[in-house]
Amino acid sequence: MKIGLLGYGVVGGGVFELCANSEHFDITSVLCLQPESVPGGKGVANADTMLADESIDVIVEVMGGLHPAYELVSRALKAGKHVVTANKHLVCHYYKELMQLAAENGAALRCTAAVGGGIPWLTNLERARRCDFIQWISGIMNGTSNYILDTMHHSCVPFAEVLASAQRLGYAEADPSADIDGLDIRRKLAISANIAFDTGIPEEAVLTYGIRSISAQDVEAFAAHGYTCKLLASAGLQEPGSIYAVVEPTLLGADWPEASVPGNYNLISMEGQAIGKESFFGQGAGRYPTAYNVVQDLEDIRCGIRHFYTNACRDRMVDNTRLRRRYYVRTSAGSDWLTSHTECHWPQGGVITSPVSPVEMHAAIHTMEQKDPGLFAAAVL
Amino acid sequence: MKIGLLGYGVVGGGVFELCANSEHFDITSVLCLQPESVPGGKGVANADTMLADESIDVIVEVMGGLHPAYELVSRALKAGKHVVTANKHLVCHYYKELMQLAAENGAALRCTAAVGGGIPWLTNLERARRCDFIQWISGIMNGTSNYILDTMHHSCVPFAEVLASAQRLGYAEADPSADIDGLDIRRKLAISANIAFDTGIPEEAVLTYGIRSISAQDVEAFAAHGYTCKLLASAGLQEPGSIYAVVEPTLLGADWPEASVPGNYNLISMEGQAIGKESFFGQGAGRYPTAYNVVQDLEDIRCGIRHFYTNACRDRMVDNTRLRRRYYVRTSAGSDWLTSHTECHWPQGGVITSPVSPVEMHAAIHTMEQKDPGLFAAAVL
Repeated sequence: MKIGLLGYGVVGGGVFELCANSEHFDITSVLCLQPESVPGGKGVANADTMLADESIDVIVEVMGGLHPAYELVSRALKAGKHVVTANKHLVCHYYKELMQLAAENGAALRCTAAVGGGIPWLTNLERARRCDFIQWISGIMNGTSNYILDTMHHSCVPFAEVLASAQRLGYAEADPSADIDGLDIRRKLAISANIAFDTGIPEEAVLTYGIRSISAQDVEAFAAHGYTCKLLASAGLQEPGSIYAVVEPTLLGADWPEASVPGNYNLISMEGQAIGKESFFGQGAGRYPTAYNVVQDLEDIRCGIRHFYTNACRDRMVDNTRLRRRYYVRTSAGSDWLTSHTECHWPQGGVITSPVSPVEMHAAIHTMEQKDPGLFAAAVL
Repeated sequence: MKIGLLGYGVVGGGVFELCANSEHFDITSVLCLQPESVPGGKGVANADTMLADESIDVIVEVMGGLHPAYELVSRALKAGKHVVTANKHLVCHYYKELMQLAAENGAALRCTAAVGGGIPWLTNLERARRCDFIQWISGIMNGTSNYILDTMHHSCVPFAEVLASAQRLGYAEADPSADIDGLDIRRKLAISANIAFDTGIPEEAVLTYGIRSISAQDVEAFAAHGYTCKLLASAGLQEPGSIYAVVEPTLLGADWPEASVPGNYNLISMEGQAIGKESFFGQGAGRYPTAYNVVQDLEDIRCGIRHFYTNACRDRMVDNTRLRRRYYVRTSAGSDWLTSHTECHWPQGGVITSPVSPVEMHAAIHTMEQKDPGLFAAAVL
C-alpha cells in the first residue's frame, strides 16, 4: 500500500520507522519543513503532487493543528484516498464534516492514535458497538496530568516543581494548559463519546475543570484519607437520550484500578450491556506507541475497512445537571453556598460537600475563585 | 450467516439470546440434551444433519469437554465450515491439529472466549502481532481464584469457607481443582503463549502451583507487608528462542494494577517492543461476557476473517530455570534447602527466600509438602 505522510515530527518519524520494517506499507512521499532530512529523497515541501498522485492509497496526517491539516485531509478524502490521523484537535473540531466526507467518498477515516496513544481504545470501542450497547465510558486519557499527579502522590512536591520537571523531560509542553486545564482530555472524551453514543458533541460541551491549583497539602490530605487524585473524563447515556460529559479531578479509593495507574500511562473503560465493564491500559502518548496505533489503522485499511468508527451522528443534549457527586473543596474564600453544602470538615483544612451536580459545583468553583484563585476542588467517588 | 450451535448450557443459551437480537446471525440448529427446550423447534439430539447442511456457514461449539467436541469440530472444519469455540480444554489439547485442519480447509477457527471470558484479549494479541513483537504476556486469567483471593483479602476468612461460598454462588465448580490448582489458568496461558510466540506448547509444560493451601494467616501477613496475593500466569521470550511459562500465587505491592483486580474479574497484559505494556481488564467468565466474545468472533468471520490467530507453530523449549524470583514460604517442615535460601523472617511466621528459579522452588515445595501438606508459598514481585 502506498502512503503519503503529512508531518515528520516525533510521531511522523516513528511511523516512517515502523513502516520501513513492514512488507505492506511503502511511504513514498513525506511533507515536512525540511524535506532534505527525510531518507531516500522522499521529502517534499508541498503536498500538491502527493495528493494528486493516484498511486497513493492512504494519507497519514501527523502534522497536528487545525490548519492546513483540515484542508489537506479534506482534499485527500475528496480524492478518494483513505486517511489515518493522530490529530485529536482536527478530528474533534471537524468531527461531522470529516466523517461525512469520508462516507461520501467511500474512504476510510481512522484516528485510533488520537485517543489513548498506543492503547487500542477506539478500535475496541468500535468493535464493542458491533454487538453491544455502550452505557458509559470513563478514564485517565491524558498522560501528562497523570504523570504530574502520580509524582505528587509519590513525593509530595509542589505542583509547579513537578510541572517544571515534566517540561524538562518532554512530557509537558512549554505552554502546559492543554494538559493541566483538561483541554486535551476533553477532546479525547468528546471523540470517544461521539463514537460510543452515535452523536457529535463539540468539545466545549464537556464540563471541564483541571488540576492547575492542586497543592502538595491537598495530596497529603487525600493520602491521609486513603484517596488518590486522578484527572478523570467520563461520559454516559441518560434517559431519555441525553448524555453527561465531565472532565474533573477525582478522588479514588485504593480499590479503583484507576488509582494505581502510574506515570504517563492511561486507563480507559467502557461499560456495555452484555460485557459489563472493560478497561484498556497502556502508554497514552510517546513516539512508538502513537506510531503503533497509526500503523494498526493502516493494517485495518489494508484488511478492508472502508469507514469511520460509526456512521451515525444524531443530536444528543449534553446534560450534566442530573449527576450527583460529593466534592472535596479547599478554599480560603468564605461562601454561603459552600457552608450550606458542607457535609464534613477534614482536619487538614478541606471540606467534603453533600452530593451536588457538577454544573452547580463548577459554577461555585468559578465564583469562589474570584476571591481565592488558589482554590482546589475534586469530585469524590 | 447461518449458524449451528453445539451446546445449550450457560454460554450456549447466552449466544442463542444475543444472536436472536442480531440481524446478521441466524442460529438454525442447536445440538443439546433436551432438544424440546430450544425455542423455535431448533433443537436436535444429533449433529449429523447440522454438519451435513451446506447452508450452515459456522459451527459454534460451547458444549465443553474434549469429546465429542473434538470430533464434531474436526468434522465441521473438514466440511469447510468456520468454527467458533469457547472451549479452552479443546483448543489447548488439540492446538496443532485444529489449527492445521482450519488452515487446510481455508476455514476460520476462533476461540476468543476461551481465554479471559468477555475480554477481547486474544483478538488484541492477534492484532498486536500484526505490527509488533510480543516480549511477554502475564495476568490474572481465572475469575474463581481471584474471587477467592479477593474475598480473603477483604474479610480474612478461611480458604475453605470462601471456597464454599463461591460454590454456592456458582463461581466455583463442585470439584474446584481446575480453578484452585491452576489447571484452568495454565490452559489459558498455554493458548495465549502459543499465539503470542508462534509455538505449540502443551499445557503440561507450564510450571503450575495453585492456591489450595493459602490460609487467612498468610493473607494477614501479606497485608501487613503491603502485599496482595494473586494467582498469576506469565510467559515470555528468552534468548535464544526458548520461553518461560509459569502459573503461581504471586505477592504484588499496591502499585501493581493487578493488585486491585476485584471479584471474579481478569486483567491480562502483554509487552510489545513498540507499544510497551498494554493491559486488558474485564469479566473473565459469565454467561453474557463469554457469549459476547463468541458473537465478536462471529462478527470477525462475517467481516472476512478466514484463519486462526497465528499460522506459525514452531517448536520452542519451555525453560523455567533461568527466571529468578523471591518466594514467601510458610511451613512447619524443617528444610536445609529453605534454611540456606532464607533471606528474611517475617514476624508472622513465614520466610522470604533469596532469588531462586521457580523450578527449584516448586521442587522444594513438593519435597516439603511431604512433611507439611499445609505449606503455602508464593512468588514475591
